[in-house]
Amino acid sequence: MNRSGRGTYGEQALLAEIRRRFGRAGNREIALGIGDDCALLRLRRDEELAVTTDLSIAGRHFRLDCHPPESIGHRTLARGLSDLASMGARPVAAFLSLGLPAELVGRAGARGARDTWIDRFLDGFEKLARAYKVPVAGGDLAESPLAVADIVLAGAVKRGKALLRSGAQPGDWLYVTGSLGGAAAGLRKLKRLAEARASQSGAKPAPKRTPQDLNSALEAHLYPHPRVAQGLALARRGLAKAAIDVSDGLSTDLHHLCEESGVAAEVDAAALPVGNEATLEQALHGGEDYELLFSAAPDARVPRVLEGVAVTRIGRVLRRRAGRPRVTLIGAGGPQALEPHGWEHFS
Amino acid sequence: MNRSGRGTYGEQALLAEIRRRFGRAGNREIALGIGDDCALLRLRRDEELAVTTDLSIAGRHFRLDCHPPESIGHRTLARGLSDLASMGARPVAAFLSLGLPAELVGRAGARGARDTWIDRFLDGFEKLARAYKVPVAGGDLAESPLAVADIVLAGAVKRGKALLRSGAQPGDWLYVTGSLGGAAAGLRKLKRLAEARASQSGAKPAPKRTPQDLNSALEAHLYPHPRVAQGLALARRGLAKAAIDVSDGLSTDLHHLCEESGVAAEVDAAALPVGNEATLEQALHGGEDYELLFSAAPDARVPRVLEGVAVTRIGRVLRRRAGRPRVTLIGAGGPQALEPHGWEHFS
Repeated sequence: MNRSGRGTYGEQALLAEIRRRFGRAGNREIALGIGDDCALLRLRRDEELAVTTDLSIAGRHFRLDCHPPESIGHRTLARGLSDLASMGARPVAAFLSLGLPAELVGRAGARGARDTWIDRFLDGFEKLARAYKVPVAGGDLAESPLAVADIVLAGAVKRGKALLRSGAQPGDWLYVTGSLGGAAAGLRKLKRLAEARASQSGAKPAPKRTPQDLNSALEAHLYPHPRVAQGLALARRGLAKAAIDVSDGLSTDLHHLCEESGVAAEVDAAALPVGNEATLEQALHGGEDYELLFSAAPDARVPRVLEGVAVTRIGRVLRRRAGRPRVTLIGAGGPQALEPHGWEHFS
Repeated sequence: MNRSGRGTYGEQALLAEIRRRFGRAGNREIALGIGDDCALLRLRRDEELAVTTDLSIAGRHFRLDCHPPESIGHRTLARGLSDLASMGARPVAAFLSLGLPAELVGRAGARGARDTWIDRFLDGFEKLARAYKVPVAGGDLAESPLAVADIVLAGAVKRGKALLRSGAQPGDWLYVTGSLGGAAAGLRKLKRLAEARASQSGAKPAPKRTPQDLNSALEAHLYPHPRVAQGLALARRGLAKAAIDVSDGLSTDLHHLCEESGVAAEVDAAALPVGNEATLEQALHGGEDYELLFSAAPDARVPRVLEGVAVTRIGRVLRRRAGRPRVTLIGAGGPQALEPHGWEHFS
């Protein structure tokens, strides 16, 4: 590794480290990777390119005082992969832009040890990138008083076969993969742990990933699994008519799907797959579960398990009608409007 | 325009405004634009996609106290377009990610007037986007204590015909479009104006773009012209063997080009097209000129004016040899090593 004299990465050295980690892991779609003004991507004749960008900002999307750097790296990439998953696209290339305070790039520990914040961030990012075979083809680096990461994902999908938000029709059933609310429950737990730690002993660095983390509800929040294989299977098998990933919370994302499709929907509260340690409220409005929400025709044969992950029928698509809520929740107390109470910025 | 009750944009309203401004300006490559989890891009059979990302951060790449918002919007897009230009790629789609403090999104002026910071930022962005016919196909929005903008540009280029940094060979001549150092001179002027204003009357908002701005050296800094048409012409006519845009400063970018090509170079100081009000020092090391630096074979017929912009021969490509500097500057006092003294983060 090539570092500057002060024991920190310079921009060129950090770029070299990223190139060392990710530059070689190419695929046939990347005609040119890191090292020029642009990357060059090629597609098969019958494919189109799905492109998504997700901005993560310290204090908004992650907290330096309670998220392990590995989790921040993982979640940065997971957000983009989940968008590809919801379109049924195969990951082709990632572009990572980082704005970081110098102290996160500087060396924290012993000479030669790879344990700076940025090393650990890249560890988490790299592990997920390898699991989904997505090379890093470019990005940008800048010094910044606030830590920010912007991830761009490019994926390939057969022309005309991408899963859109706009394809739902009255009569469709609504399904969701995995479980909901676990990430919100995990976040709450994480914040409590951080507060307890801070009150005990002042500010401490974020803990390393431990087996205990992995065995708890924290995992759903710290290391969510984007449903790439499930999205690909839905597209390949022509099962879904519309899809979206549950990133802002079921209530908000179902509204988005209904708006783009020009339909209404009802959800059966009792049917919701509420996650480990989560409440119904968290399952309805908690964000960052990165599950897939999709609609399918009434006669579609949707399996109960798709690529190893449970699929649950949670409601149905209705005709949009004046006076009827966009989304209705059918609970123990009867039907009521389900407002989009998930995350919105500037609100 | 759909704004929330407090006279500010909510996230959805700001998204709607961006969609209103840019969503319709599609082109045949954009199969799906703003409004889903991903955009979908299509290419002609014999093309590949050039992708670049550029992160701009308040206090590093722009200053809220002295850059007009229109200039920040313009420069955000110009950075990405310049990367496409250096590859000889035709702009296809832009993706804009914004992290903004709520007060920049809030309404500053009279009821209904479109004069918030974000409106003016989008004005500057939109004007340049229209000039180069590049639609916005997606992006992300977030509230942030620090203003950040990440721009992704996708462009189309004939397979195998992109201009790379790595193609320069000993014997090639080196050329540069336009002039160098003007942006650095303009930045210096801008900072002096801001200091004078601050000492006179406390902090004032950044001035609107005025005709005076446009007639001065400030223009090169505030509203640089990416050399898209020139890059396309170089690629189409097969004139350039290697190219890079001068974004970090000639000394740094020429080093990049030499490193990727495995060559050395010499530059003739007297030949440099030094910009309006700029010094030789600024022409050598000042960044953000967004001109193209390229090499061409000795027998290539490089015109003196390309698509309306001057082209100047500034030096030549040499064989890499032990003991010889990577880049040599031949000045009045004889040859000397030209070190990369342009911009580097974390240094």
